[in-house]
Amino acid sequence: MTEAIHHLAANTLRALAMDAVQKAGNGHPGMPMGMADVAVVLWRRFLQHNPADPTWPNRDRFVLSNGHGSMLLYSLLHLTGYAAMTLDEIKHLRQWGSLTPGHPEYGHTPGVETTTGPLGQGISNAVGMAIAEKWLAAQFNRPGFEIIDHYTYVFCGDGDLMEGISHEVGALAGHLGLGKLIFLYDDNGITIDGHTSLAWSEDVPARFAAYGWHTQTIDGHDDTAIAAAIEAARGRGRAETTRPSLIACRTHIGFGSPHKQDSSAAHGEALGEAEVRLTKAALGWPVDAHFLVPDEVYAYMRAGLDGQNQAAWQALFDQYAAAYPELAASLQQAWRGEMPAGWQTHLPTFAPGQKIATRASSGKVLDALFPHLPTLIGGSADLTGSNKTLPNGVAHLTRDDFSGRYLYFGIREHGMGGILNGMALHGGVRPYGGTFFVFSDYMRPAIRLAALMGLPVIYVFTHDSIGLGEDGPTHQPIEQLMSLRGMPNLVIFRPADARETMVGWQAALENRSGPIALLLTRQNVPTLPQDHITGPDGAIRGGYVLSDAANAQVILIGTGSEVHIALAAQQLLAEQDVAARVVSMPSWELFERQPAAYREAVLPPAIMARVAVEAGATFGWARYVGAEGAVVGLDRFGASAPYETLYEQFGLTAAAVAKQAIENRQQTTENGKRKTDSGEGGG
Amino acid sequence: MTEAIHHLAANTLRALAMDAVQKAGNGHPGMPMGMADVAVVLWRRFLQHNPADPTWPNRDRFVLSNGHGSMLLYSLLHLTGYAAMTLDEIKHLRQWGSLTPGHPEYGHTPGVETTTGPLGQGISNAVGMAIAEKWLAAQFNRPGFEIIDHYTYVFCGDGDLMEGISHEVGALAGHLGLGKLIFLYDDNGITIDGHTSLAWSEDVPARFAAYGWHTQTIDGHDDTAIAAAIEAARGRGRAETTRPSLIACRTHIGFGSPHKQDSSAAHGEALGEAEVRLTKAALGWPVDAHFLVPDEVYAYMRAGLDGQNQAAWQALFDQYAAAYPELAASLQQAWRGEMPAGWQTHLPTFAPGQKIATRASSGKVLDALFPHLPTLIGGSADLTGSNKTLPNGVAHLTRDDFSGRYLYFGIREHGMGGILNGMALHGGVRPYGGTFFVFSDYMRPAIRLAALMGLPVIYVFTHDSIGLGEDGPTHQPIEQLMSLRGMPNLVIFRPADARETMVGWQAALENRSGPIALLLTRQNVPTLPQDHITGPDGAIRGGYVLSDAANAQVILIGTGSEVHIALAAQQLLAEQDVAARVVSMPSWELFERQPAAYREAVLPPAIMARVAVEAGATFGWARYVGAEGAVVGLDRFGASAPYETLYEQFGLTAAAVAKQAIENRQQTTENGKRKTDSGEGGG
Repeated sequence: MTEAIHHLAANTLRALAMDAVQKAGNGHPGMPMGMADVAVVLWRRFLQHNPADPTWPNRDRFVLSNGHGSMLLYSLLHLTGYAAMTLDEIKHLRQWGSLTPGHPEYGHTPGVETTTGPLGQGISNAVGMAIAEKWLAAQFNRPGFEIIDHYTYVFCGDGDLMEGISHEVGALAGHLGLGKLIFLYDDNGITIDGHTSLAWSEDVPARFAAYGWHTQTIDGHDDTAIAAAIEAARGRGRAETTRPSLIACRTHIGFGSPHKQDSSAAHGEALGEAEVRLTKAALGWPVDAHFLVPDEVYAYMRAGLDGQNQAAWQALFDQYAAAYPELAASLQQAWRGEMPAGWQTHLPTFAPGQKIATRASSGKVLDALFPHLPTLIGGSADLTGSNKTLPNGVAHLTRDDFSGRYLYFGIREHGMGGILNGMALHGGVRPYGGTFFVFSDYMRPAIRLAALMGLPVIYVFTHDSIGLGEDGPTHQPIEQLMSLRGMPNLVIFRPADARETMVGWQAALENRSGPIALLLTRQNVPTLPQDHITGPDGAIRGGYVLSDAANAQVILIGTGSEVHIALAAQQLLAEQDVAARVVSMPSWELFERQPAAYREAVLPPAIMARVAVEAGATFGWARYVGAEGAVVGLDRFGASAPYETLYEQFGLTAAAVAKQAIENRQQTTENGKRKTDSGEGGG
Repeated sequence: MTEAIHHLAANTLRALAMDAVQKAGNGHPGMPMGMADVAVVLWRRFLQHNPADPTWPNRDRFVLSNGHGSMLLYSLLHLTGYAAMTLDEIKHLRQWGSLTPGHPEYGHTPGVETTTGPLGQGISNAVGMAIAEKWLAAQFNRPGFEIIDHYTYVFCGDGDLMEGISHEVGALAGHLGLGKLIFLYDDNGITIDGHTSLAWSEDVPARFAAYGWHTQTIDGHDDTAIAAAIEAARGRGRAETTRPSLIACRTHIGFGSPHKQDSSAAHGEALGEAEVRLTKAALGWPVDAHFLVPDEVYAYMRAGLDGQNQAAWQALFDQYAAAYPELAASLQQAWRGEMPAGWQTHLPTFAPGQKIATRASSGKVLDALFPHLPTLIGGSADLTGSNKTLPNGVAHLTRDDFSGRYLYFGIREHGMGGILNGMALHGGVRPYGGTFFVFSDYMRPAIRLAALMGLPVIYVFTHDSIGLGEDGPTHQPIEQLMSLRGMPNLVIFRPADARETMVGWQAALENRSGPIALLLTRQNVPTLPQDHITGPDGAIRGGYVLSDAANAQVILIGTGSEVHIALAAQQLLAEQDVAARVVSMPSWELFERQPAAYREAVLPPAIMARVAVEAGATFGWARYVGAEGAVVGLDRFGASAPYETLYEQFGLTAAAVAKQAIENRQQTTENGKRKTDSGEGGG
């Protein structure tokens, strides 16, 4: 390699960023210009990937955590030969339908490993990827067959490292000894508000050293120093394979811009035509050229990317498959995101009558399934015993023995969310994680990204209502349930009993296009006698007739533990000669996926009198009970007391539901028969 | 002081915790038993407070961030003489209506400075308190009059320090040199899942040293060492007043329990009758006594707490008031949470027609108000220019000059939320903070606590919809608006134009019983001509008739930037001879506070055809449009493109609203006149 070609390649990245942002009229040129040298060194000399097959399982992972610098990634994909990333796409940066959105989007642009932009998410995804790599290696590699063996490289910025999640995942990565995880930190001293000294005086390498990381500080524009630092971080054959690495790269944001380098003006807006010209001149670039890529830069950046690395790996894998056919088949199945055939036959059965918390029945489901789902791996944010997330006899993974299938995440809900996403993105594993439902608030940004990316992550959220009792309002979810229902592509499943819980896990494992949250009780609930709960027209439909009555005049709809209140109210109403149907609706989202005819059969438009009962915010229920319906719920914060007292005090009782039903029936009867065309509600 | 009485007092705390938890049947005895020695030293020898007046403004603040150890705080309040905290209350730990809920609740129990339980919140509140203290001192103290001069002490645990928010607020506290902030860290090596080594190998003092903190590590059961460490941290007259302090106290969780000390079994459940007896025996405590407090312990813990400290301060304050009457009056007003009389007269006016983003009009409101509201203090999580949160000519506070009224929070949304809460809890300041609306997800746990505590915090959330355009789906709120509407006691205000924005700030500053979120556009919107927007029947009501039509057949309801779509649709409908009323509804919550007659006048039951338009999740709108109504909204994630393209592509257009209105009118006409008793919708 020569000095000159390195500079030419780096300046190509700078010029493309300036040109694309200038054409778009907005965007972030500063980071691509500042990190161009590091990018060229990493992508030219180290990164193992194959532009012809972005899904090669053993590729190195590259995460651009400071996603606003998306133009850097788009240029790198273009220069290294990802066919979809044409120069024309780059010319349509941040435009409708282009492969070059404002922030990199997984599933949208080939070669993008994760969706980034919300700061701190990418670094946490990367930790998850490195965990998945180390775990798969422990599970599947055999002597002479390092089938899983790749690095995870991360570009991150001041913002990523100021965010709290950087602490959570940094500490856990150090604890777990993720030696093949390398952060290249764009230490440019500038944030949107100005110099980082406005709000920051931390010694970043010292912090990461306190986590057990290997740290280095270098000039981020010195290609020799960059290469040496990455070599040291990789530590092939040396001791450094046991610690993750942070390389603080001192860079100049907006490198080369006479008036905007080293200022926040270079961060998040186009430099302006005049400044672009001045910068190109300063960089020795043709000032009148736009979107110029010298041929020698293509040649340089594509050297060695002819797919030979993947071919060599494939040859090894073929030998591995011959030697270990079952392992290889299992791994390939896992990469496809599939479960072993017939896994559903191992789902447990639950006898009616037994009183058991749904968190406990969830634990029993895990006990039963774990031996048969070898790539299912889970953990909890320090609530293992409460969440019932650790199956019987399962070991946890440790720094020195990564073969365990359980991960103690520590008290790091947000980090757990980001790590689960990273594990799912890496592939080959099916991750789940548990905490109290109220603390889903802590991990909401990560849940949102799972939904946006369509990642099959499973959340085990226990203590799902005031039913947790004495811990009080800080721990009692109220608005969480209704509020998560607004998140596109997130499925929520709140089972009423052990059998619905079993169905919930079935739904979770079958749901491969997005995340699912299981909401589980702390308190015991009876296992219901209706056998159809587990059938094809039962809970798997999201909503179904749990208990019917001839000529029902009222529909009572419940979810989770409140289904039992609805059933008790049905009894009270029967005693008053009011026939009521009880609909259990564990999942609005799965119910909405059913055909209209099914939904209308469950909630016939002709039955206008409706009451929903759910221990949470009520405002969204008009969707199913209509404007005329009633909701027995909770629009205030909870309180600390035994849960039976709380249900009584807050009026979440069978008597209250029955009373509402009778009032509602009278009202709707007076108002005449409900028209058939408005169905089960608008909204 | 004597050794013996210290131990007797500490053992009293241990015995009370064991007895209360045992009686309740659940709770957390381990932490109170482990931190009893530190608690006695701090409360007996250092903490300046007055049990007879828990609201004394210059008291030291004590924050129990590991709030599950609530029994420790309740015992301390009882022992030091807070009248409300009787032994009877302690006997009713975690029971309905008691002053001793599972976790400490601000506003519920006198002497509790903040509601804690969700880990990491208390430490962030404490940083906010220390900021408020230092800021008020800089503003109001005068030579010889250290009117504001107190410490903020914090108990925190492993969980607090594993949480990401500990990084955000720890780094900021170090940066700001909060020398009177002291963390007493319960370094007991145990979390719920077991030994911290399961998930943690961090060098905590080294991390805090990297933030610029003063750190010490001591034996948390050695009262001499504890006292010396607190002395050193306080650093009166020495250099240590410029750095916050972390004292890692090595303690034994469940101290004294023969079988459960140093184990997670002591953390979160009653020890059991037998083990309580064994522990009491081991501590030299009468095994048959329950809820025993030796008289000498009362005497010891109450020594010096006769109110003389407050009286001396009051005398100084009276002299101060004589010397600086205006300052004293201003400070007293601020402590009462009041604004200077007539502040509303300084609200700016906006001429109709001008196109201006509501974030920009918000900035102009701040420009106008800031000189007249001396205790308004704000900041942004590194989006100052985007949020328009820095008023003209206002300086930011720095480590060395705390008199500025603007705070650069850094890229720390969650920390900002917790700090804003702490500032509001401290009193004397009126805090606001800004970020992009989508990143409200990062601070949601803190927003929830503001709502739960009823704190008058103001959130400036800009870039409130797909209207932000090119930054794409990671930055475009979809579900945030509807989802926050479910949070009890949070007011949301999403203004349509500059005038509604002005009203939004008015509402925010007048709303003293809870938090309020202003949702503001990135994109320009025209300032509307209707003068009644700013009147008593305008936006301040939360919902109002913005533009009426004689014999309106349809109601179009909009919020924020979509009000302009509704107005354009009204025009389109008029061209088709359909008379439509446009209702602007910036705040559901304020609208719901209006009398029923007002609400029915705005949304008359007789007008059944209704369409709501809002660039966000639709499912809650059935509340106002009814089951028959329509919603033009967005139930998918956004995309990266210029915002005009997005509105068009996603069908958020006047034509779509008009089409829905006509279809809806036909449908509701066919269905007959809407009955009057179902009003503006159920749910």
